[in-house]
Amino acid sequence: MSARVFEEVERERVRELSKAAFEEQATALRVSLVESQRALAKADFPVVVLFAGVDGGGKGETVNLLTEWLDPRRIVTHAYDRLTEEEGQRPEFWRYWRDLPPRGRLGLFLSSWYSAPLLDRAYGRIGPSALDRKLERIAAFERTLADDGALILKFWMHLDKKAQQQRLEALQKHPRDHWRISQWDWRNWHRYDHFNEAAEHIITRTSTAEAPWLVVDGRHARYRSLRVLGMVNRALEARLAGLPPPDAGFRARAPVASPAVIGATVREVKPLATIDQTKIVGRKAYDKSMARLRADLYWLAAQNLLHGLSVVLVFEGWDAGGKGGAIRRMVSALDARSYRVHQVSAPSDEERAHHYLWRFWRRMPQAGQIAVFDRSWYGRLLVERVESFATEAEWRRAYAEIRDFEEQIIGHGTLLMKFWLHIDKDEQERRFLARKENPYKSWKLTEEDWRNRAKWEAYEDAANDMIAGTSTREAPWTLVPGNNKRHARLEVLRTLCAALQSRLTQRAAE
Amino acid sequence: MSARVFEEVERERVRELSKAAFEEQATALRVSLVESQRALAKADFPVVVLFAGVDGGGKGETVNLLTEWLDPRRIVTHAYDRLTEEEGQRPEFWRYWRDLPPRGRLGLFLSSWYSAPLLDRAYGRIGPSALDRKLERIAAFERTLADDGALILKFWMHLDKKAQQQRLEALQKHPRDHWRISQWDWRNWHRYDHFNEAAEHIITRTSTAEAPWLVVDGRHARYRSLRVLGMVNRALEARLAGLPPPDAGFRARAPVASPAVIGATVREVKPLATIDQTKIVGRKAYDKSMARLRADLYWLAAQNLLHGLSVVLVFEGWDAGGKGGAIRRMVSALDARSYRVHQVSAPSDEERAHHYLWRFWRRMPQAGQIAVFDRSWYGRLLVERVESFATEAEWRRAYAEIRDFEEQIIGHGTLLMKFWLHIDKDEQERRFLARKENPYKSWKLTEEDWRNRAKWEAYEDAANDMIAGTSTREAPWTLVPGNNKRHARLEVLRTLCAALQSRLTQRAAE
Repeated sequence: MSARVFEEVERERVRELSKAAFEEQATALRVSLVESQRALAKADFPVVVLFAGVDGGGKGETVNLLTEWLDPRRIVTHAYDRLTEEEGQRPEFWRYWRDLPPRGRLGLFLSSWYSAPLLDRAYGRIGPSALDRKLERIAAFERTLADDGALILKFWMHLDKKAQQQRLEALQKHPRDHWRISQWDWRNWHRYDHFNEAAEHIITRTSTAEAPWLVVDGRHARYRSLRVLGMVNRALEARLAGLPPPDAGFRARAPVASPAVIGATVREVKPLATIDQTKIVGRKAYDKSMARLRADLYWLAAQNLLHGLSVVLVFEGWDAGGKGGAIRRMVSALDARSYRVHQVSAPSDEERAHHYLWRFWRRMPQAGQIAVFDRSWYGRLLVERVESFATEAEWRRAYAEIRDFEEQIIGHGTLLMKFWLHIDKDEQERRFLARKENPYKSWKLTEEDWRNRAKWEAYEDAANDMIAGTSTREAPWTLVPGNNKRHARLEVLRTLCAALQSRLTQRAAE
Repeated sequence: MSARVFEEVERERVRELSKAAFEEQATALRVSLVESQRALAKADFPVVVLFAGVDGGGKGETVNLLTEWLDPRRIVTHAYDRLTEEEGQRPEFWRYWRDLPPRGRLGLFLSSWYSAPLLDRAYGRIGPSALDRKLERIAAFERTLADDGALILKFWMHLDKKAQQQRLEALQKHPRDHWRISQWDWRNWHRYDHFNEAAEHIITRTSTAEAPWLVVDGRHARYRSLRVLGMVNRALEARLAGLPPPDAGFRARAPVASPAVIGATVREVKPLATIDQTKIVGRKAYDKSMARLRADLYWLAAQNLLHGLSVVLVFEGWDAGGKGGAIRRMVSALDARSYRVHQVSAPSDEERAHHYLWRFWRRMPQAGQIAVFDRSWYGRLLVERVESFATEAEWRRAYAEIRDFEEQIIGHGTLLMKFWLHIDKDEQERRFLARKENPYKSWKLTEEDWRNRAKWEAYEDAANDMIAGTSTREAPWTLVPGNNKRHARLEVLRTLCAALQSRLTQRAAE
């Protein structure tokens, strides 16, 4: 059975180029590629080139040629094997995020996020609908990168069954290459039709306008080299010139519909208006509850460590809303080894050279650890939106990006909780003035706090949209009335303890 | 048997503080610590606080208190278990380097580089001389950090055998803490005398002026908390005020003698003068040798990958000396998955906030990988010295720091090779002018190249000193005559292939 997406390539019956013809074209192409790479170094987007396809189809050779022609100091090649210990403790895409090239650089992926789905499907370890779920995840990942400007090119090196057999046999006979062929290659070959069917489905489903597949006839080394490197060069040149991408040779299906954009209708929802600020906790009740909750938390966190669960806690809220105090009360009940507090302010220059979510991906906690974010990726929907650090298109698509990011965290089994510490405008003024008076706290108050306060309504709109747009069943926002600090601190601890307790009970039942 | 360093503490028989006395002192201390931490945030040094000592001696509790009192967003706590997969593939100290706090921050180490030597010695898994070698490594590590400005404080929490027994029993009876005590704690307790003896030796050997140990009586929680946190505060305040460190309470032995400083005598050695530039290779001979060497290298690197050896290659040399060309010829013969080229230029801001070796430590290759450094840590002894980016004291001690760094790389089993690509001054001029003429290469030539050239003699002195001062038996410099590019490229490949071959033969014989 021959898959439809490979028909065209198989029908074409391309011939190998003569050595002379190759040399001639290669020289011009190489000069052009080097020029493009130099221009890329100053450009503000990264390039992701991904290779997949049949074993023996020339993936490795093509990557080697590309790195030989280009400046190897500005390329990094990645390949992935089974998950390492550190990788296994994070959401599946953690290792891919970690290895994404910064702007101005090329990242080559010799095995990638497509490897496991292909193998799993070809060996029948997952069914068609599980495969589709994985492909949706991949499409969302690639869309996120492309939206941020990444140029993504995907090459599928194709061989028909007979050609693959010949190629494997030739390698096996080669005195220096025979060790490269293992029983696994032959095992895969025997399932050629299954691989082909899965591959067709994968290519069809994930060939999008922003991340198209190009299927390349892998039989002839010189032909396929020029085809792939030529396409890399054309795509790079087009992007550098600000032109639309060249036709990828394979007709992409209609792009997957983007998730609904949070728009005017959601603006009507005002979650912050529902917060009840009337609850007040007295000192004595507070001390008693606090002592009990801290003891509970200490015990629960220790159990958590034993069970290898990881926890991500997000704190957002108004300036002087009590984030710092709540975090401090919480972590002081924890074993210092078991948590990290990440204070999120301006990104470092390495972080700035990547997608805005990259710096949060790299901070995902290992098994048993608690990562506390004092401000977070929600900055995209708050300060970056209000202060116009992000364009409207950027923050509008961030709702879906963040939901997707959090879905992956949760999907890994991590407990994710999000707290909004809320105070009203009058209470903020009281606290600002109190800080100003207090010699011990006055450093906490800056000009910027007053400037932000002047934009209260804009921040309020942003926060309402954010909460409405990113409260999901698995990761709802906990809105914490914060006018009374004691109440707020207890509320945070209580919610956290309840969630940990329920998660541990669930885990014990599994 | 009671160890001498613990005698004083045991003789003192300190009493526990009353709750009221504790509260009074604690309040003042806490305010002072918070002030110090805020000042630290703007200072240009990191703080490393390390806790060791008897199980049950209050290490964890003290760290928790410290993080409770201070701003948890500017502290990170580390503890280490057995090596993870990623850690095991790098030199032993890789994980400690990775976790060092940046300038302005506090890093707390709850288990540390002392844990394994102590355990190994107490259980007799290593003898006294092996222990001493490990302690020398530790002393060198701490000296390197201290030389760079790090404030290092080490606390040993002491309990006598009886007190430890009581503490373990108390924990075991506690309804919520009993799970913290395992058979391991009791196993260690049964070897109390062995631990004590090893600890005494370790403390004596590694208590230096720049990284002193303070032995603390661990029996009474309030007393020991004030003692440790008080000392942290006093040391921080002294350093922030530019004063010498307070007396650590334990008399440090005379500091370990620093390794001999490379000085005037070495200046007489001029390795560069010995380079023979007369060898010329013709095009035909070059093509033939190159083809053979590239095939050899490909095969050897593949074997290397199979055997899990890691390789670090350093390239230094004059501008236009042919580093880039040599690297490109070499890596183009390699599988793109098996190497990374690190082009070393200005450090990122995260890197700048650490010791200058930190950014190289983080790039140490995993098993089977080849890391190629196009310029390297030797910048400290070349450009940083000549351009006065490093002070004289800084670059002078870099000889020993780098020898030590490389010793660790080699000690891990990594193959380390260092190439100096040499051209003479006339040849450089010819190449500069040729680049100027060539529209394809003119971008490679900058004003800076001409400026550096004007300082040829200063760079020559620096390079001569560098080669003389860092050529060791295990990591000699390979001086490559570079006036003839073909000769140089073959020489690099030939040397690398021979070294890989010999290493693989050796590995096969093991």
